[in-house]
Amino acid sequence: MNVIADFCLVPMGVGVSVSKYVAACEKVLSEAGLKTRLHAYGTNVEGDWDEVFAAIKRCHEAVHAMGAPRISSTLRFGTRTDREQTMEDKIRSVETKQD
Amino acid sequence: MNVIADFCLVPMGVGVSVSKYVAACEKVLSEAGLKTRLHAYGTNVEGDWDEVFAAIKRCHEAVHAMGAPRISSTLRFGTRTDREQTMEDKIRSVETKQD
Amino acid sequence: MNVIADFCLVPMGVGVSVSKYVAACEKVLSEAGLKTRLHAYGTNVEGDWDEVFAAIKRCHEAVHAMGAPRISSTLRFGTRTDREQTMEDKIRSVETKQD
Amino acid sequence: MNVIADFCLVPMGVGVSVSKYVAACEKVLSEAGLKTRLHAYGTNVEGDWDEVFAAIKRCHEAVHAMGAPRISSTLRFGTRTDREQTMEDKIRSVETKQD
Repeated sequence: MNVIADFCLVPMGVGVSVSKYVAACEKVLSEAGLKTRLHAYGTNVEGDWDEVFAAIKRCHEAVHAMGAPRISSTLRFGTRTDREQTMEDKIRSVETKQD
Repeated sequence: MNVIADFCLVPMGVGVSVSKYVAACEKVLSEAGLKTRLHAYGTNVEGDWDEVFAAIKRCHEAVHAMGAPRISSTLRFGTRTDREQTMEDKIRSVETKQD
Repeated sequence: MNVIADFCLVPMGVGVSVSKYVAACEKVLSEAGLKTRLHAYGTNVEGDWDEVFAAIKRCHEAVHAMGAPRISSTLRFGTRTDREQTMEDKIRSVETKQD
Repeated sequence: MNVIADFCLVPMGVGVSVSKYVAACEKVLSEAGLKTRLHAYGTNVEGDWDEVFAAIKRCHEAVHAMGAPRISSTLRFGTRTDREQTMEDKIRSVETKQD
């Protein structure tokens, strides 16, 4: 089962500057061979369900290992059985319907 | 690694009435032996990371098997290494700080 | 336009213990006269759209005024035009479909 | 108060193909003069709090007016008082910390 997800991790107890933790997650996700795209409030991730969720677990483990005692993440994730669809398909589909 | 999560599944392409799909997820989560608590916009779930995420995958599989061609879910999920905390602890902690 | 929402505020830069900030939000929401219900990963809120969103703004203002330099919140929010539905209706609708 | 948000609207009761509704929201947001950036699972929006949330309300109104009887949206939104930060700042801040 393929999944398109959008992941946003917030480390707590480490001050206001969290970009190094987010960068560590980007590295984990890309080393997992997943298709990713960083945006201003999260990261799009596409791939096999088990691989995507295994990588997200490793993100939490990596951020804790960097010293963050608490993490609060949010994830949107979509699956469909009617047809295949990539992240690019989703964006193109919206853009071609705009004036 | 323990996780406290909040899961909200939205089946698409099945009309506006989605409660039977949500009920099927509740059944999957409770049959997984996880601690759950339904609220008006999702379900709190607590347990071991792997068990929680395996159950969430089964929810998507079950809802697709019921005929929903597309699903868009959202999840909040928190982990901490500084101390153990249950869902009840989180609620009590807020309530004891209210006037 | 009525809205049922689920609000979760995460103050950043204030350490791992955030319950006093969440308690302050609960107070803001209930003083706004909104129907609310705290759960382990957020708060259900129901009411008129403008009143709900004005109260959420006051939550951010209150938490900043308490000293949190940064806030990352998440909100689920649903509206419908086909019929009226309360938070209790949503829960009952799921529960009556469970075995 | 400035806010950086990430908005994802899911129309329900209109079938599996929802891109025309998302495209209508893009139009509403850009006509509001807000800075936006579409990604594969939502749209980044940046601007003054009141303008951002007024535009999000108009998105719900527009999608209902197009015939969707029910909408379930999710929003991440962040504010900070310690310093100004744009969407581009957030992305650059992560990218400069990656290997």
